[in-house]
Amino acid sequence: MEKEQKLHNLRHTLAHLLASAVLEIYPNTKNSIGPAIDNGFYYDFDFESPISDKDLETIEKKMLALLKDWNTFAHEEKSVNEAKDYFKNNPYKIELIEEIAEKGEKITFYTAGNFTDLCRGGHLENPNKEIRAGIFKLDRIAGAYWRGDEKNKMLTRIYGLAFESKEELDAYLIQKEEALKRDHRKIGKEMGLFTIIDEIGPGLPLFYPKGTILRKMVENFISEEQTKRGYKDIWIPHITKGELYKVSGHLDKYDAMYSPMKIDENDYYLKPMNCPHFMMLYKTLPHSYRDLPLRYTCTTTNYRYEKSGELSGLTRVRALTQDDCHIFCAESQIKKEIEVILDMIKDVYKAFGLNDFYVRISLRDSQDKSKYLGDDKVWNTAENALREIVKSTGWKYEEAENEAAFYGPKLDFMFKDAIGREWQLSTIQLDFNLPEKFELEYISNESKKERPVVIHRAILGSTERFLGVMIEHYAGNFPLWLSPVQVKILPISTDKHSVYAQKILQEMLDNNIRAEIDESSETLGKKIREAKMQKIPYLIVIGDKEMESETLTIETRNGEKLEGMDNNAFIQRLQEEIRNKTI
Amino acid sequence: MEKEQKLHNLRHTLAHLLASAVLEIYPNTKNSIGPAIDNGFYYDFDFESPISDKDLETIEKKMLALLKDWNTFAHEEKSVNEAKDYFKNNPYKIELIEEIAEKGEKITFYTAGNFTDLCRGGHLENPNKEIRAGIFKLDRIAGAYWRGDEKNKMLTRIYGLAFESKEELDAYLIQKEEALKRDHRKIGKEMGLFTIIDEIGPGLPLFYPKGTILRKMVENFISEEQTKRGYKDIWIPHITKGELYKVSGHLDKYDAMYSPMKIDENDYYLKPMNCPHFMMLYKTLPHSYRDLPLRYTCTTTNYRYEKSGELSGLTRVRALTQDDCHIFCAESQIKKEIEVILDMIKDVYKAFGLNDFYVRISLRDSQDKSKYLGDDKVWNTAENALREIVKSTGWKYEEAENEAAFYGPKLDFMFKDAIGREWQLSTIQLDFNLPEKFELEYISNESKKERPVVIHRAILGSTERFLGVMIEHYAGNFPLWLSPVQVKILPISTDKHSVYAQKILQEMLDNNIRAEIDESSETLGKKIREAKMQKIPYLIVIGDKEMESETLTIETRNGEKLEGMDNNAFIQRLQEEIRNKTI
Repeated sequence: MEKEQKLHNLRHTLAHLLASAVLEIYPNTKNSIGPAIDNGFYYDFDFESPISDKDLETIEKKMLALLKDWNTFAHEEKSVNEAKDYFKNNPYKIELIEEIAEKGEKITFYTAGNFTDLCRGGHLENPNKEIRAGIFKLDRIAGAYWRGDEKNKMLTRIYGLAFESKEELDAYLIQKEEALKRDHRKIGKEMGLFTIIDEIGPGLPLFYPKGTILRKMVENFISEEQTKRGYKDIWIPHITKGELYKVSGHLDKYDAMYSPMKIDENDYYLKPMNCPHFMMLYKTLPHSYRDLPLRYTCTTTNYRYEKSGELSGLTRVRALTQDDCHIFCAESQIKKEIEVILDMIKDVYKAFGLNDFYVRISLRDSQDKSKYLGDDKVWNTAENALREIVKSTGWKYEEAENEAAFYGPKLDFMFKDAIGREWQLSTIQLDFNLPEKFELEYISNESKKERPVVIHRAILGSTERFLGVMIEHYAGNFPLWLSPVQVKILPISTDKHSVYAQKILQEMLDNNIRAEIDESSETLGKKIREAKMQKIPYLIVIGDKEMESETLTIETRNGEKLEGMDNNAFIQRLQEEIRNKTI
Repeated sequence: MEKEQKLHNLRHTLAHLLASAVLEIYPNTKNSIGPAIDNGFYYDFDFESPISDKDLETIEKKMLALLKDWNTFAHEEKSVNEAKDYFKNNPYKIELIEEIAEKGEKITFYTAGNFTDLCRGGHLENPNKEIRAGIFKLDRIAGAYWRGDEKNKMLTRIYGLAFESKEELDAYLIQKEEALKRDHRKIGKEMGLFTIIDEIGPGLPLFYPKGTILRKMVENFISEEQTKRGYKDIWIPHITKGELYKVSGHLDKYDAMYSPMKIDENDYYLKPMNCPHFMMLYKTLPHSYRDLPLRYTCTTTNYRYEKSGELSGLTRVRALTQDDCHIFCAESQIKKEIEVILDMIKDVYKAFGLNDFYVRISLRDSQDKSKYLGDDKVWNTAENALREIVKSTGWKYEEAENEAAFYGPKLDFMFKDAIGREWQLSTIQLDFNLPEKFELEYISNESKKERPVVIHRAILGSTERFLGVMIEHYAGNFPLWLSPVQVKILPISTDKHSVYAQKILQEMLDNNIRAEIDESSETLGKKIREAKMQKIPYLIVIGDKEMESETLTIETRNGEKLEGMDNNAFIQRLQEEIRNKTI
């Protein structure tokens, strides 16, 4: 925590330094606010005339120049009038001062060098000793409405990056550059995986055949792993009467639902979650302790509102397909059931080469319990149960308040991808509340009515987000079992080699290899470049030599050459690689 | 047509005869209207005191007695006043007379025996010669609002069945009884396939695990047959901006859409059809003649309004999952593409034992062309193309006006099920209009911009309706490949035989046989009855004898016995039966 506070202070100090530099160079600028953020800091300015990214270098130099005189931070309390007088030409600061005064809080000014700002504190004590060149960098400018409200004036935000050491900043920059190359929206377009269409709507991706193969491959994989473990598929519709979400508490506690449609006399909602459907299906039949655990699963699309500014490709959408599962069990079965899920999470993510992860135990917000269903006793039982199970695995974990679902605490799984970024993917939620709300029952072995516990669970999280993450994790170079096109066949001359190439193609298709042929009139060089751009794992070139010898010339997308194999042997090799899900 | 007119006249005459008999027995009854319908006739009455099904026999006898004097039908025109005077005690007839008068039409009375009714005509000329006992039967009574409006008084409707011969009536009654036994709602409940839940909504079935297996089996079968034929899966979201349905014409021409949801500033609709999504996906990429035909497919759920009174189990729902496909092709490719579809329809329905079918060529309503997109030329081309292809198959067909989609003519496939009922299942639609509306293009081999044609197609129609039909067709006795549970293992004593039975079970599961075990403490007799009620194809009884000899005692659901096979041999037999989709 101390380390984090120090980093925060460093970044906040740099925000001041940035404002100071800007006011030195552009004296008629009005500065507004400048906080520390995740990877650095920003400051919002009202410039007299626009600046551009090109100006950042000058500002950065000025920051370093000014830093020399920043020995210390002085602060003093001001009266409202003193403060307003000091900032008399700055309407933003005046607005802030008035707000602070209204709340009856203290007004403090902080000064370093010859720059003074309205501020609550949280700086380095000796800026010029603790900030070294190379640990920060001005990153980019962007537009930002004053106080985030689009009715207000658009200000200019300057973003800066800052870390404790130059090495950390450099690593961050490399990761950022790599992430840019791997951007799933860019790769998704190049590989023809998915698209988002204005006339249909933002946040509602459509998948081309190649993207649909990816969807099916991951969904089928999950389905197989579930079947092995005794899970049973169910099917539910996408809309429901509002009544259902009144019982479940969603209408009251969950705010990302879309507005209702009127059908006959009733309000119907597009489902944002599946839990109530699962509960109702359970409830239609009598259950005995012999039936439990009952592991119901359904891969189905939910619809949730996200602000349009927050939508991003596949990773933040308005239609998300969850590999959703609800386990109805007795309290005594919780541990065993969660262990089955943990086992599956490990197996699944191993297949995707994601072995570095930790568990976040997501707890209630202890400051505001009104956001949740159920009383303290139920929450304590559920939170302790999860804590205990996680501890017994020996896996890395952390606890986080205010991250629970409204009906119960969660285990969230945070995975590191190939370039070290963290993604929250799987989730397991323990729920004593919805079974209560829906009055679910089973008959115990003593012929008494008992209430089951429900474990909610998704392994991929959502198909869309998972694929977004996987595209970036693999940079589009999917392992063979996932590759939309597994083999590309390139006849050197369409006249001479097409018939033979078609024969090779057909043999592959008959063996369920996803092969394609390129019979365009382009040069071989261009065909190879095109196939590599499509990140196709194997290319086969068919020319006179190959036809005569009845062997294949095979090149991998990494440039490796395989020679002397006939089609039969190659197909067997491919099938084995697919079966093993070789990474 | 003459035959049909004669049957209509017979049924209409019987409606008069019914009214005559009712008024003889219950003189204070007010008769309203009585038309011929599909399988007979009905008449709506306002009885002084309620009657019940038990009274139908008496009425039927009276009909036969009165019939003797019904030699002929006389008719005469009446003035409004004469007519109103005749029916002065009957407010229903008065209302009808006033309406006819308002339209300026003639008022005619028809009389046979001593019964006179307000009527437009259409009767047998010599009722007592043409109606024989045994060709009609009063069926049931039901409530019916006057003029179908729930604000009006509820009348009593008496339904009668009537056919040209006693044989036809008897066949109809047998079919009806058989249909009742096969009712998919009844079997669906008994076998635990699906349910409809009030709090979720009528017309929105949910599927239990066993019903979901049925869904998957038929959908996967279609998917395999499509992949073989070069179809490619895509994926689309369930909602879209209204803009899209403005372009496609749905908002203007299609009235079963649900009311919109507001998201940000836009109206979004739940999709009732997929066509526009397919069109847009095509449009996002440039296409060359080399890409065509492009066969895009997606099994996805559509949402359409149906009146609640018309909903029925799975066969009439508000959420229907279509095995939808859109083929983008050049005009010259239409014939070939439709042939590929016809071939698939034949193969698929053969697997379900539905070989008796005819094709309906569904044409525009020539009386009201405003209901359709596109001009005469386009429609003539499309209608002729379909007509020609159907003729070339040599299959039975008929042409039907006013059955086309708003964007093009269709081929609808009418299949006869196991008890002779007709179902419309597959459909193929030829569309020159939406490609125009969406301005779809491809570059021809002469480097010119051309417009593709679109063929819309569904083989099952909808998963839900198809399953409803299949449940009734098979009466729940699904062939092995479709059966939700394929084998039930019944240990005679849970103490002594369970461990061995579990071993047999595990071997089956490992070989992808859907097997279950019944370890309840019920008697063997009860377990067998329960399994037969569940229509499970194979039962295995495990007792001392079976454990010693390591062979199985197998009984089919039809009571056939198979003996002396070991589990390995039995599994192989099952796998072969599944692979061959044996009926």
